[in-house]
Amino acid sequence: MIAITSNNVSEERIQEIVHHIEQYGLQAHVSRGTDRTVIGIIGQFEPALAEQLRQMKGIEDVVRISKSYKLASRDFHPDDTIIEVKGIKIGGDELIVMGGPCAVENKEQIDEIARLVKAAGGQVLRGGAFKPRTGPYSFQGIGVEGLEMMAEAGRKHGLLTITEVMTPEYVDIVAEYADILQIGTRNMQNFDLLRKVGTTQKPVLLKRGFSATYDELLNAAEYILAGGNPNVMLCERGIRTFETYTRNTLDLTAVPVLQQLSHLPVIVDPSHGTGRRELVETMSKASVAAGAHGLIIEMHTDPDNSMTGDGVQSLFPDQFARLLQDFEKLAPIVGKKFDTKKNASFVLS
Amino acid sequence: MIAITSNNVSEERIQEIVHHIEQYGLQAHVSRGTDRTVIGIIGQFEPALAEQLRQMKGIEDVVRISKSYKLASRDFHPDDTIIEVKGIKIGGDELIVMGGPCAVENKEQIDEIARLVKAAGGQVLRGGAFKPRTGPYSFQGIGVEGLEMMAEAGRKHGLLTITEVMTPEYVDIVAEYADILQIGTRNMQNFDLLRKVGTTQKPVLLKRGFSATYDELLNAAEYILAGGNPNVMLCERGIRTFETYTRNTLDLTAVPVLQQLSHLPVIVDPSHGTGRRELVETMSKASVAAGAHGLIIEMHTDPDNSMTGDGVQSLFPDQFARLLQDFEKLAPIVGKKFDTKKNASFVLS
Amino acid sequence: MIAITSNNVSEERIQEIVHHIEQYGLQAHVSRGTDRTVIGIIGQFEPALAEQLRQMKGIEDVVRISKSYKLASRDFHPDDTIIEVKGIKIGGDELIVMGGPCAVENKEQIDEIARLVKAAGGQVLRGGAFKPRTGPYSFQGIGVEGLEMMAEAGRKHGLLTITEVMTPEYVDIVAEYADILQIGTRNMQNFDLLRKVGTTQKPVLLKRGFSATYDELLNAAEYILAGGNPNVMLCERGIRTFETYTRNTLDLTAVPVLQQLSHLPVIVDPSHGTGRRELVETMSKASVAAGAHGLIIEMHTDPDNSMTGDGVQSLFPDQFARLLQDFEKLAPIVGKKFDTKKNASFVLS
Amino acid sequence: MIAITSNNVSEERIQEIVHHIEQYGLQAHVSRGTDRTVIGIIGQFEPALAEQLRQMKGIEDVVRISKSYKLASRDFHPDDTIIEVKGIKIGGDELIVMGGPCAVENKEQIDEIARLVKAAGGQVLRGGAFKPRTGPYSFQGIGVEGLEMMAEAGRKHGLLTITEVMTPEYVDIVAEYADILQIGTRNMQNFDLLRKVGTTQKPVLLKRGFSATYDELLNAAEYILAGGNPNVMLCERGIRTFETYTRNTLDLTAVPVLQQLSHLPVIVDPSHGTGRRELVETMSKASVAAGAHGLIIEMHTDPDNSMTGDGVQSLFPDQFARLLQDFEKLAPIVGKKFDTKKNASFVLS
Repeated sequence: MIAITSNNVSEERIQEIVHHIEQYGLQAHVSRGTDRTVIGIIGQFEPALAEQLRQMKGIEDVVRISKSYKLASRDFHPDDTIIEVKGIKIGGDELIVMGGPCAVENKEQIDEIARLVKAAGGQVLRGGAFKPRTGPYSFQGIGVEGLEMMAEAGRKHGLLTITEVMTPEYVDIVAEYADILQIGTRNMQNFDLLRKVGTTQKPVLLKRGFSATYDELLNAAEYILAGGNPNVMLCERGIRTFETYTRNTLDLTAVPVLQQLSHLPVIVDPSHGTGRRELVETMSKASVAAGAHGLIIEMHTDPDNSMTGDGVQSLFPDQFARLLQDFEKLAPIVGKKFDTKKNASFVLS
Repeated sequence: MIAITSNNVSEERIQEIVHHIEQYGLQAHVSRGTDRTVIGIIGQFEPALAEQLRQMKGIEDVVRISKSYKLASRDFHPDDTIIEVKGIKIGGDELIVMGGPCAVENKEQIDEIARLVKAAGGQVLRGGAFKPRTGPYSFQGIGVEGLEMMAEAGRKHGLLTITEVMTPEYVDIVAEYADILQIGTRNMQNFDLLRKVGTTQKPVLLKRGFSATYDELLNAAEYILAGGNPNVMLCERGIRTFETYTRNTLDLTAVPVLQQLSHLPVIVDPSHGTGRRELVETMSKASVAAGAHGLIIEMHTDPDNSMTGDGVQSLFPDQFARLLQDFEKLAPIVGKKFDTKKNASFVLS
Repeated sequence: MIAITSNNVSEERIQEIVHHIEQYGLQAHVSRGTDRTVIGIIGQFEPALAEQLRQMKGIEDVVRISKSYKLASRDFHPDDTIIEVKGIKIGGDELIVMGGPCAVENKEQIDEIARLVKAAGGQVLRGGAFKPRTGPYSFQGIGVEGLEMMAEAGRKHGLLTITEVMTPEYVDIVAEYADILQIGTRNMQNFDLLRKVGTTQKPVLLKRGFSATYDELLNAAEYILAGGNPNVMLCERGIRTFETYTRNTLDLTAVPVLQQLSHLPVIVDPSHGTGRRELVETMSKASVAAGAHGLIIEMHTDPDNSMTGDGVQSLFPDQFARLLQDFEKLAPIVGKKFDTKKNASFVLS
Repeated sequence: MIAITSNNVSEERIQEIVHHIEQYGLQAHVSRGTDRTVIGIIGQFEPALAEQLRQMKGIEDVVRISKSYKLASRDFHPDDTIIEVKGIKIGGDELIVMGGPCAVENKEQIDEIARLVKAAGGQVLRGGAFKPRTGPYSFQGIGVEGLEMMAEAGRKHGLLTITEVMTPEYVDIVAEYADILQIGTRNMQNFDLLRKVGTTQKPVLLKRGFSATYDELLNAAEYILAGGNPNVMLCERGIRTFETYTRNTLDLTAVPVLQQLSHLPVIVDPSHGTGRRELVETMSKASVAAGAHGLIIEMHTDPDNSMTGDGVQSLFPDQFARLLQDFEKLAPIVGKKFDTKKNASFVLS
């Protein structure tokens, strides 16, 4: 941590500041500049001290130089984290495709979509049983029944399953049915939920809050890691900006940046990231080119009649299949593997 | 709801769209323009239909014309909501001041601060017992013990108390001790929490998410109102923008806008809204001039040693008292009442 | 300037970095931390060096500790700048009100509005002769003819005049007619225009770009000051955020912040800052309470038929007059003077 | 255009509104809804009327349904615009790569970089002779001399040249030397500059303002097109968001969206869009996958000593060459052609 003094602070004041710092058991190194003096503070970061300094007379700014997260940082874990589930490795050189409807609607729907995801070469079935909705009057999902339908469809067709868990008390039941737990964008800073999934060993897909910085996303991941669960994936799903033509602005630069800062796998959600079907295909390819470890894409057999109204961003089965064919060509150019035939016949362990 | 067609859509296609709309039991009125045709859709708004239309061939855009919230809207409740607690009216012509520390630290601290808040003319004691923290390694609050200390300090000095509740399972216990429940900015869309506080009759201060639109804030309030709890206050506490000099950008225009759109009381939090003590006084006065029904302000007897590091935005007791003197002069100019002496001697019913 | 090293950089690499810094004729002070080392760089800031360091191996971040602007900074000019024009002082303890139409339309219109601004107690007549328009097909202003009409109306009614200048070649002609030159939000970084007005001694009202940081605004002011023109006023007029209900989000915190960082007068434009008449009155009062040195407010005798379509944000004459009555009461509470009668009879020198 | 009434507006008031609309020579179609009534307004859009309606009693909102730009819209020009310069086609199925330094520094530098750009397979040489700088004390470019050096290097090595023009009076001189004129992000709404380049037939690369919406970018292009110059390219170069880790947030979704809304070629600038060399390579590939017609990339032989300090985002020559090899593999997957050998030996007509 570094404290930067205001213009022309007295030597005496600087000594008082140094004294205050030393009371925290930290060392202070003073460097005098032409119009500012800099105090380097050596030792573990103390948020309270940082804030106190920031508003002490004679201090203009305080800059933190060590990151607030450790377990999520590549500094402390140089190698990529690879999460293996039933023989499928997430975070390595294999591209992972998660596909499925916004919401599980009934047995036939999810079974048919699972069949199509597998046939196209996807490895994971996505689908919502519990839906977070901005307004109280919208369809909220069919609940536990949907978890069962999804689990069965996954087993039958040889796909892993991922679904959202919205509240701590549902973590155990969802973990019983799903292979991967999803934390939604609105819950990225629902700290009790983060702590609870941290007590399990289930892989967790943590979606970036639609206005969360990279630092906040990695701190949210830190909650889960600190709880003892190392199986965390980060997910870019679009951020809120001044541009309202698209539902969100997909921040693909997050992919290489998060891979630099952290060792955790990075997944992209181009469906929520764009909110419009015709943009999903294009941005999916861009996501692969940006080096994503995987994608989570909405696909529906009858999007025009989906129950959530998210049909507008769901691909038709044939679009989805064509897109995965393109991934097969794109992946090698960015050092990834993706073999649709192999995936279609892969048997989960 | 209105559907706007693309350029040069065939009459036949328009008829197909109209037919699709009528299948929802809604009426469609077609107005043909020079280069666009508009289809007015009459009846209850259907989110799913809206999204379907948005991506049907021939449709360029869909515009909603009725609001998604009803109970929170002034259309459905023209008169201001006034929430009365132990003889104090929030939402009327009396300015309400909530003051206190970021976190309850110990019995002496909260008792002394309560004494100072009352003496200065405040009506409500604020303080955190449970703290939402971005990183897992920061001070998380002292918990239930803090609730007891606060409740006692409030009783002793004749102040209402407000504290944050972060998770559904804590609502009942917090409601037992506090007069007003606070929903924090990160929980504005924690829907289970909103539903749970909606089952009580406790007044709730709902903080705007730091990236929530007015519409999202009012929809979050709708969750609580729809649950059966009419005692909701809205709180502007700063939004996230590109400007990083201040922690947040305090959006004071939210005050008159929310008062137009809704009948619920609007409170401003200039402490989190600016993040710097020297700005809190100025922006507090601006908040009163903007017509806020009340303010929630951090005050601490020893901010330099506050446990949360939020001391930087806490006023000193004498600043707080001077500020309330200014409120007394400002209030009448904007049609509000604020009498520090009367408040200092007011006995809760 | 400070360079912060990455985790575990070799001593040898640090010496190379120090050597590189010294080649710029600067001194480097090294402070070793537990997991980072900090290099304090003493001497005049060098942007090129900063960027080089930022991307040298072993460097994680570079932090600037002296401001990039000097003439605009309070560090180098502790006292408030007061700009005196024809006996009216801007930037001191007197509140300044600039009122008038978005665009000058004809002789009668501007004369009548000038009369009403003076009668209400305003000191400056605003009006656009040249209009910056997002699209090429909108009304672009009536040009030089409008300048003459405005100048005459100002002379006749004893008001200073302010109007926008959009391009360097028009600076001389506009300066001939107007008392104050306005640089619009879209031109805040039109550097040739800034340089050109810097060669005059005319007071300049510099509007903050709708997405400019405080630092960028002060750097833009620096261009004018560095050109030799010390008569610069800063103007907050709303920033672009994710909230689209209002045309812009008026950032009133800019007022106290800019007054801390700089000695230049700070004016607020609540008309463009909100875009809706019903919000202008409220936010004007909030601006005064926030400590603004002045306001620039749109007023029109027939807003429904204004030529620019900005009538929606123009006050009616009676609203304008009532508002100035409120300013008279508000000003003293924040240490300002505003006497409508005195202003109405004030004769320009 | 559509006017939406408030809740429960009287039939009489609706008739007054209709009458007001008809005074503009427009037709009004009324559709009555359950809680709102909608008035469809048929005819050419009138901004002034829109604003008047917006603030008339009884009107809640006004929605525009025809775009404000016409010449830039795909509605009015269904086929892609292809700009041919000296035998090179921009906007078709050939990927265009523009490479070079941030600033032209001297004859040797630009000649050597031009040689490397050509050898790697690029088609256009970029370089700044005049630099827009946030602060007045930074290097501002070497001016006309730089234009001559660039033109000569382009001729010698068979590359088109592109450079920024910052002010109307320089358009003619820059047009004399450069093949493509660049309008920088800060000048996107410098309307005089747009009008002036509109009077030439020179190809123009129009950079999106760092906070401009798609609609504003297309309206800025409309200024140039309306002036009579059809040779406009749009350039995405990153937008300003709350995320400050990267200099800007590269909005790659702009590529497919702008290609939907408009027929103009879309170029991406990953150098300014990320601000960090290590991200430029990755995001360049993502840009190609997103369907960009071309890229403009900074490359420097000695970035650590570049004069602008933008070296941090400049690629080394070998990185640049490797990247173009990857483009050769990527292009066909998204239906584009890019042949480095053919380009390296291509002779300008």
